[in-house]
Amino acid sequence: MKARVRPGSSSYDNLCLPAGFSFSAACAGIKASGRPDLALVEAVPGTTAAAVFTRNRVVAAPLEVGRASLAASRGGIRAVIVNSGNANCATGKAGIRACRQVCRDLARLLRLRLNEVFPSSTGIIGVTLPVDKIVARLPDLAAARDATRQGIDNFAHAIMTTDTRPKLACATFHSGKTAVNILGVAKGAGMIHPQMATMLVYLFTDAAATPAELKRLLLDSCEQTFNCISIDGDTSTNDTVLLLASGRSGMRLRQPAVRKDFAEALLEVCQALAEQIVSDGEGVKHVIRLCVEQAGNREEARRVAQTVAHSLLVKTAWAGADPNWGRILAAVGRSGIAVDPAKVNIKIGDQMVCRGGVGCAFDEKRAHEALAQPRCDISIGLGRGSRSILFLTTDLTTEYVSINADYST
Amino acid sequence: MKARVRPGSSSYDNLCLPAGFSFSAACAGIKASGRPDLALVEAVPGTTAAAVFTRNRVVAAPLEVGRASLAASRGGIRAVIVNSGNANCATGKAGIRACRQVCRDLARLLRLRLNEVFPSSTGIIGVTLPVDKIVARLPDLAAARDATRQGIDNFAHAIMTTDTRPKLACATFHSGKTAVNILGVAKGAGMIHPQMATMLVYLFTDAAATPAELKRLLLDSCEQTFNCISIDGDTSTNDTVLLLASGRSGMRLRQPAVRKDFAEALLEVCQALAEQIVSDGEGVKHVIRLCVEQAGNREEARRVAQTVAHSLLVKTAWAGADPNWGRILAAVGRSGIAVDPAKVNIKIGDQMVCRGGVGCAFDEKRAHEALAQPRCDISIGLGRGSRSILFLTTDLTTEYVSINADYST
Repeated sequence: MKARVRPGSSSYDNLCLPAGFSFSAACAGIKASGRPDLALVEAVPGTTAAAVFTRNRVVAAPLEVGRASLAASRGGIRAVIVNSGNANCATGKAGIRACRQVCRDLARLLRLRLNEVFPSSTGIIGVTLPVDKIVARLPDLAAARDATRQGIDNFAHAIMTTDTRPKLACATFHSGKTAVNILGVAKGAGMIHPQMATMLVYLFTDAAATPAELKRLLLDSCEQTFNCISIDGDTSTNDTVLLLASGRSGMRLRQPAVRKDFAEALLEVCQALAEQIVSDGEGVKHVIRLCVEQAGNREEARRVAQTVAHSLLVKTAWAGADPNWGRILAAVGRSGIAVDPAKVNIKIGDQMVCRGGVGCAFDEKRAHEALAQPRCDISIGLGRGSRSILFLTTDLTTEYVSINADYST
Repeated sequence: MKARVRPGSSSYDNLCLPAGFSFSAACAGIKASGRPDLALVEAVPGTTAAAVFTRNRVVAAPLEVGRASLAASRGGIRAVIVNSGNANCATGKAGIRACRQVCRDLARLLRLRLNEVFPSSTGIIGVTLPVDKIVARLPDLAAARDATRQGIDNFAHAIMTTDTRPKLACATFHSGKTAVNILGVAKGAGMIHPQMATMLVYLFTDAAATPAELKRLLLDSCEQTFNCISIDGDTSTNDTVLLLASGRSGMRLRQPAVRKDFAEALLEVCQALAEQIVSDGEGVKHVIRLCVEQAGNREEARRVAQTVAHSLLVKTAWAGADPNWGRILAAVGRSGIAVDPAKVNIKIGDQMVCRGGVGCAFDEKRAHEALAQPRCDISIGLGRGSRSILFLTTDLTTEYVSINADYST
């Protein structure tokens, strides 16, 4: 029995809270707007953790510190401290020192070991982290912790940069009479704002698991969700997905049946967050659910999907709801995969528009209307095999360009 | 002694005409505008040829036919027929038959063998080539041939699609008292127009060479010029660069000294055309001369340059003349090259803005002014070796998006 909810829906009240976590948020004055920009999670003793980080070689200070802490604590994380408004990236050794100081002060306050604190930052690149402002707010932040919906909501708002709405999803499954909960909170990635294109995802569960079990499950889920979305093709320096397991449900992932249910629920939460991230991309008018089918293997399906999803000619056509299949076919052709154009089929909405690499008669008005919806399915058959991939992407609008061009350092 | 001229400059009158070629153009009614859309070159007997084609797997009919003709004639091409307004791509077997019919009719008219005719098409994808319209104009086209500047100018205009100006360049060198001329005519690529993003380049010389010699020289030149430009990252289905050598100067490339001078002159012509193509990209306000230095090898320099040149966050920052080095650094980091961020330096105009992966103090107003020029130099040092690449690219403006979104099939 699973339930997935998103903010704004009437079922927001049904948000399932995994036991063992408390949340809080504060305004530290990092954001010029004065909005909340500091967020804390504390987890009960015995909590285990695993994380996946950006593949960018340029990596922000908190990722280096967080990675080291995860290793040193052997996946024993007790607190997560997140600031928005400053990415603490391209800040050199001073950036590392600043990040460590925040972690050290928080550890002292919460009586934890230094490497039990996991840091994240998101915001502008290349600007010194205002450590004093952050450290000054830590006592209030620690005191305000709260294991309620309100606490989670505050946390979700404080990690936002130019997201227009908080991103939350959850799922529950039962093993016998025991309920196991997974809650996910995210902020958006890509096409977000100048220098602020970071995806941060925090996943909380009351299942009991070793860090190695968590890592394997997290990699699997990310591969199918967060690694299958693209807005503008840029990979942030700060991308982080962290999974924390408090163990408070008593249900162990060591049991294969529980692990299977957990994997399914985790995938569901990650997919819901991925969709929320894509649809909240800045300037996005249309979300495209791109399905690449009949590929020889998953990797070639992904390469074709990425090439189409990153093509400016394709993305701008989508902005105009133009059923321009020639541009899609041309992008498939330059994907680096040895596609035989004579075997390529393209569907827009429910209509075949290109069969065997050649255009076929279709109702252009209906195809235009399908693309004019907030969400449209496009499928590409490669005629090479039986593997497929579902990739979420977006159009490219003049609003995106304006937002990203009109900023000045 | 070399001279390079571009149309519009006062030296346009100095256009050097390689002996052995005659040119003409006509209006066949393929373009709805009624502008010239059919162009012909005839070359004297003994002319040799080599060509480089798009790497896209989806390839237009004229490329398949042209490639086969080059092979069958062993590089003995005597005529080139180009139409604009229709790419004859994704048209299946009917497209191949249409292309062959045009070549056959022209061959008969000029008393050539079928495979001595080389075809090109540029324009909309997926629409049947209007063969009858083209064939009907061939007699007039053949009769109008002309070895003057006017003939070349007519040819250059007739191959345009949404180019705002014709693209011409030439160079001359002397070996003893003999002058050897190279003339290049091109139409633009990328960010051009919906479904009309093709680069066509025709190079004419009166040097004498074997097809194999031409091929080697052409590959070298393309590698350094047309393969180092990017506007929107899309690769056309019709891209073609063709080099024809009439031999009429009597100067043979077999001689190493002549070959060296020729290679230099060819590079100069290709570079001039590449720059004209980039600066005439639709919606382009700023051309960026991106120099990636201190790479371990040329391939990694190219990968870094391409990643930066294709980053939407970087390109939109350039549109706003924003000296946002953080985005450039982040693009370098995700290029797939094992760059050490602590060794990366970035210069905008004449100012260092990022040293060792960390921002340094710079005059932001001056950097903004440098980026606001029609042409700006940006250099990226990787600290990995001694290889470098010069890559020409552009900003991404709201005009590009509008042009490409507002089209409807």
